Amino acid sequence: MIPTFHITSPDEALRPIIQEKIDNLNKPKGSLGRLETLAMQICLAQQTLTPSLSHPCHLLLGGDHGIEREGVSVSPREVTWQQMVNFTKGGGGVNMFCRQHGFHLRVVDVGVDHDLSDISGIINRKIAYGTRNFLYDPAMTQEEYERTLQVGIDLVDECHAEGCQVLCVGEMGIANTSPSSIWMSLFCQMPLDECIGAGAGLNTAGIVHKREVLGKSLDRFLRLHPVNAKADEIIRYFGGFEMVAAIGAMLRASELKMLILVDGFIMTACALAACQLYPAAKAYMIFGHCGDESGHRRMLDALGAEPILSLGMRLGEGTGALCAFPIVDSAVRMMNEMNNFDNARITKYF
Amino acid sequence: MIPTFHITSPDEALRPIIQEKIDNLNKPKGSLGRLETLAMQICLAQQTLTPSLSHPCHLLLGGDHGIEREGVSVSPREVTWQQMVNFTKGGGGVNMFCRQHGFHLRVVDVGVDHDLSDISGIINRKIAYGTRNFLYDPAMTQEEYERTLQVGIDLVDECHAEGCQVLCVGEMGIANTSPSSIWMSLFCQMPLDECIGAGAGLNTAGIVHKREVLGKSLDRFLRLHPVNAKADEIIRYFGGFEMVAAIGAMLRASELKMLILVDGFIMTACALAACQLYPAAKAYMIFGHCGDESGHRRMLDALGAEPILSLGMRLGEGTGALCAFPIVDSAVRMMNEMNNFDNARITKYF
Repeated sequence: MIPTFHITSPDEALRPIIQEKIDNLNKPKGSLGRLETLAMQICLAQQTLTPSLSHPCHLLLGGDHGIEREGVSVSPREVTWQQMVNFTKGGGGVNMFCRQHGFHLRVVDVGVDHDLSDISGIINRKIAYGTRNFLYDPAMTQEEYERTLQVGIDLVDECHAEGCQVLCVGEMGIANTSPSSIWMSLFCQMPLDECIGAGAGLNTAGIVHKREVLGKSLDRFLRLHPVNAKADEIIRYFGGFEMVAAIGAMLRASELKMLILVDGFIMTACALAACQLYPAAKAYMIFGHCGDESGHRRMLDALGAEPILSLGMRLGEGTGALCAFPIVDSAVRMMNEMNNFDNARITKYF
Repeated sequence: MIPTFHITSPDEALRPIIQEKIDNLNKPKGSLGRLETLAMQICLAQQTLTPSLSHPCHLLLGGDHGIEREGVSVSPREVTWQQMVNFTKGGGGVNMFCRQHGFHLRVVDVGVDHDLSDISGIINRKIAYGTRNFLYDPAMTQEEYERTLQVGIDLVDECHAEGCQVLCVGEMGIANTSPSSIWMSLFCQMPLDECIGAGAGLNTAGIVHKREVLGKSLDRFLRLHPVNAKADEIIRYFGGFEMVAAIGAMLRASELKMLILVDGFIMTACALAACQLYPAAKAYMIFGHCGDESGHRRMLDALGAEPILSLGMRLGEGTGALCAFPIVDSAVRMMNEMNNFDNARITKYF
């Protein structure tokens, strides 16, 4: 049975009280800019004037993609499992930023095309050895889809039980910009051309080929679903195991009123998909980074999301979101540590 | 006698070797975006493949401005000294971000219009009780100008002796967007209208008035200096004590090959002035934040500077630059902690 979620929007009654606290801090009104809007979002999500970011956790979810067989990625499939092993050794991009910002990292095999079961440091939640090739078949069965959502739910429950209030999700999955682009095209109702980019480094010919493969895949799906397909169906047909687990994780985290740090193009596509299923989830999402992948900015705009950073990163793994964490932390410190005009004995200037 | 500086550009011979190291880290080429260009700048400045950011220090420099008497700021002059006292109590914006990022904070009275000599926690380097009003007179004498540069030099020497490799400079000085706008207009040869903004929160009428006052001040200066004025003369005529000390600090830090984190509109104006005197200084400057103050983006563009953050902050105190520090730290960690393709045993994909 498909998991369901009871996600409620934050109670807005607290908004004017939070705003009053922000406006009385010893600074010109509005002068901490994005930190102030972040603080508002976090205080509303946590329903408090003194927010906290206890026990931050990062889920690094790995999976392979049948569509990779069509040559849509510059990187070979084996890089997925090689990087998963690399993450257990501490030398990947995600590792250094988790260390820097105090995130507890879980490396999870959800659908990697390699036996990783004896690698210490990789949590084995494998659904299958990669998805099917969505040029010909749905990426996963309904049963796999439901089990994969549950993987995300269970992981978040573990984090929550440890006291986690802020969850970051990252991915490792060669070719996973391809399903992301198709989700974007279908959910945002945008032409595929506006949703496709270079991924990890395709050249122009490579992008043209990717466009052809994804166009054919999309045509086939639309022939099979002549009436508007449901979000669930779209997600299942194209999604990777790591992506569907991410959606389950985001939805469960929203249900638990945890904050979710959203990473780059692929994780934004997962956030978009999650919000198609449960629009209320968006209140708990903080968008960390706008990357270089063509279409990422458009997808963020479609979500009404304002990313914190724009540093031209396109590594994935959650690295863009992790790099944004100290800004989120600054917003929380502003609420908890900054004097107001009264206790600082400063003339309030307006 | 005016202090001079021997600032040399980093040796470029190391560039291809640094680039090779960056390109061999286990990630798609260029995929860490701005972190990679930051890493290049830092490695060049420090002439190393293993950079470090030991003992970060923040100088919070305070001063008052004669031009404040013309009503160019929404905030009253007394806020300068009140905030300086507040900073010693730990409740200001600058305090929380220094704590967050491990910066050693020095609060320095360079020219505040209030006796702060008995306040524990404020370093007394007072040149005068505020500058003169540049609508009528040069802000400071030549002798004051030289002594103020020396204040910045001495402060950096203290930091350097403690092992500081990265310096952040912030300011507290009601009305100091006014001299910043004039410097920008003269140094960038831009119309004053493009250099003036709302400061801490002026309304439209306030901005019109500020424009009038600054226009008259500039006209008077240009009448007195019919031939192109020297940068030193422009800096002295309009600058605040906290701003000139910042210039001295930036130039001395560049001489010592320390990294300099540059904050918002006012500190960018100081960086601009410093680069007018010694263009080689720019190689050591990292621009932390592009704020909302009208003209800040244009000034950064004129400097060829690419700010790390753009969060709509306009508090000053160095807060924008401090918030960018973790990104700089991430760039350094990338160089020191990330595996390369060989030791991670990953297929190099291009």
